[in-house]
Amino acid sequence: MNALKVIMSRRSIRQYKKKKVSKEKINQILKAAMYAPSAMNYQPWHFIILNKREDIDHLFKINPHAEMILKAPLAIIVCGDLKTEMNIDYLVQDCSAATQNALLAIHELGLGGVWVSSYPNKDTVEGIKKYYEIPENIVPVSIISLGYPAEEVKTEDRFNESRIHLNKW
Amino acid sequence: MNALKVIMSRRSIRQYKKKKVSKEKINQILKAAMYAPSAMNYQPWHFIILNKREDIDHLFKINPHAEMILKAPLAIIVCGDLKTEMNIDYLVQDCSAATQNALLAIHELGLGGVWVSSYPNKDTVEGIKKYYEIPENIVPVSIISLGYPAEEVKTEDRFNESRIHLNKW
Repeated sequence: MNALKVIMSRRSIRQYKKKKVSKEKINQILKAAMYAPSAMNYQPWHFIILNKREDIDHLFKINPHAEMILKAPLAIIVCGDLKTEMNIDYLVQDCSAATQNALLAIHELGLGGVWVSSYPNKDTVEGIKKYYEIPENIVPVSIISLGYPAEEVKTEDRFNESRIHLNKW
Repeated sequence: MNALKVIMSRRSIRQYKKKKVSKEKINQILKAAMYAPSAMNYQPWHFIILNKREDIDHLFKINPHAEMILKAPLAIIVCGDLKTEMNIDYLVQDCSAATQNALLAIHELGLGGVWVSSYPNKDTVEGIKKYYEIPENIVPVSIISLGYPAEEVKTEDRFNESRIHLNKW
């Protein structure tokens, strides 16, 4: 699909088929994430792929908003390394751009996914770090729940002219 | 172009032709930004389009890293509204996803752009708020410098297997 069409038809998908996602597709998603821009091109991201039921489901124990994860055959924790990017706010922006690239790649590949929050919720961040054995300098910024879509979510018109300002606010 | 190709061939473009960007293309870029996901679907973003030389150039006075802006026919300040999203860290993630969508749309449309930092640099944020007459509750998160590309930047291989972890770190 044309990139504009992918951007505008992407929706958050929370229901998934049981079908597994191939390693090739996972690598394409992670590659897309790694092609995001980053401050000073530091590329501070790391990705934890979860494909074991128990490890995926544990995210719901840590983040009670992550119920969709219980049906997902796959999840990705997008992390940033504070040794590579020492400024937490740039690190969050870099990892957010990487997350968005991954979500677009997921949609382009015929899969569906949703951005689940992690940072800055302290319980979620610390819970993830402990269970998934993440080093001190690594911040889990976001979680992606994904799989083959088992629901269709209609596209709504989001263009909002009142949000556009010219030269001054 | 296929979305994966757009994601992987996008590079930061800092040199621009003098040719103006049409209003139609600007609206497509902003529409793409507005189709980003956001926490709770709050869509807290606002966009200030700068097309007047003086107003574009002023960004360089505020952010000395923004030299590329002096040659850009257009700039966009991506802002977030703290009345719509009260958590600054979610606001930054939402605006980062919107910025990335805009950069991909820019590339798809045959234009070139680069993500210029604003938040959390206090001088940049306060300088922008003052000059562009931005209300107190609005945070300028990022700046996009853009135009028709006058340089070609080679794609580097960014896929890095050492950044991938399975089930535990």
